[in-house]
Amino acid sequence: MTADRIRALVFDVFGTVVDWRGGVARAAAPFLARHGATKVDPAAFADAWRARYDPAMAEIRSGRRPFARLDLLHRENLEQGLPDFGIAPGQIPAAELDELNLVWHRLDPWPDVVAGLTRLKTRFIIAPLSNGNVILMLDMAKRAGLPWDAILGAELAQAYKPSPEAYLRTLDILAMRPDEVCMVAAHNGDLAAARSCGLATAFVPRPTEHGPGQTTDLAPEQDWDVIARDFGMLADKFGA
Amino acid sequence: MTADRIRALVFDVFGTVVDWRGGVARAAAPFLARHGATKVDPAAFADAWRARYDPAMAEIRSGRRPFARLDLLHRENLEQGLPDFGIAPGQIPAAELDELNLVWHRLDPWPDVVAGLTRLKTRFIIAPLSNGNVILMLDMAKRAGLPWDAILGAELAQAYKPSPEAYLRTLDILAMRPDEVCMVAAHNGDLAAARSCGLATAFVPRPTEHGPGQTTDLAPEQDWDVIARDFGMLADKFGA
Repeated sequence: MTADRIRALVFDVFGTVVDWRGGVARAAAPFLARHGATKVDPAAFADAWRARYDPAMAEIRSGRRPFARLDLLHRENLEQGLPDFGIAPGQIPAAELDELNLVWHRLDPWPDVVAGLTRLKTRFIIAPLSNGNVILMLDMAKRAGLPWDAILGAELAQAYKPSPEAYLRTLDILAMRPDEVCMVAAHNGDLAAARSCGLATAFVPRPTEHGPGQTTDLAPEQDWDVIARDFGMLADKFGA
Repeated sequence: MTADRIRALVFDVFGTVVDWRGGVARAAAPFLARHGATKVDPAAFADAWRARYDPAMAEIRSGRRPFARLDLLHRENLEQGLPDFGIAPGQIPAAELDELNLVWHRLDPWPDVVAGLTRLKTRFIIAPLSNGNVILMLDMAKRAGLPWDAILGAELAQAYKPSPEAYLRTLDILAMRPDEVCMVAAHNGDLAAARSCGLATAFVPRPTEHGPGQTTDLAPEQDWDVIARDFGMLADKFGA
């Protein structure tokens, strides 16, 4: 990668930019208490909700189901997972589940994110390339002060990462060559898929995304073009 | 309209936010001189280029042509219009026409725009709902400092205004009811189409968009929900 050639940085969001596990656990705690699931660890509840994320998208990636935005998949996954925690979804008003589902719109960024993005924005187009849908990303950005130039991602591409279409259609919208765009992610799999499409790659590990016992994505698994400890170092490496 | 209900303001851009005629004329002047069209008024050249805009989109609105982004339509329209000014497009390197075509990415906002948008952004989601494509809007915003929260519009909707789909698909992406979104435009026709889809409407006249002799859109033609002299007054009226 030649950093001079890069015009846009596109970011994975869940895990890379925001702490989904901490945020979902915090919002789930009073919900679980209210519905008698007092012995459930809210972080385990967050993990279980998130565990249904990839299988739900797999239905769409495979073509078995037409594209549906992540807010809808999250809502379905929530309802399907509640019985595992002893909660009957039919007993809960739909509005209360809708409200809990919005927790994904209200996740906090890691502490280095806003300052790093603000620096990168002075030199590059910065945008999420997340599986999250537009209004989810927009609500999150307004609340957290994420200074995106645009909201790109799965809903625009009508394809979920790591399908190549998610990256290739984003390049098409940006009207850029693959080597003008760098994918930033805490996940080796996302970067591998981006690299297969020709994008430059930057790895920023988030070793507590999955909690203190995390075993995956602790280290780079390929020679990614940039490796940075956090978004401050990322901005340093991009000369921003 | 109840202003308290509004969550997002979406903006027409060409004419409402930026001065396309002045910007295109300035960029066209040296191009015309270079190619011997020294007697052509650059503003007339801008008008002629723009006059091909609506007919090109009409082909797509009618379904006779699949959706194509505005950068491509602008490029075709440029080439088709050059002979009217005594210039043979085949004599000009493609890269030079590509470069001139990018003038639409580099238009200046009216003087009240950045301050007004900055105020409105503190209270509302603000985004373009333009027929311009994403990278056009993105380049323009980066250069001019337009503080959009997201880039919405025709390319996301895969439909050109004033087709209802352009407004309705934008509402769908925002996951908002029509009365939660206000369309801001200097054009009565755009507002009429938005109102037909249930959106709130705000009219900000731009009486020199078409030059000193402008005869259209000088005044509101319906009782739009908000009428404001400029984006400063628009922010006042929205309590931002």
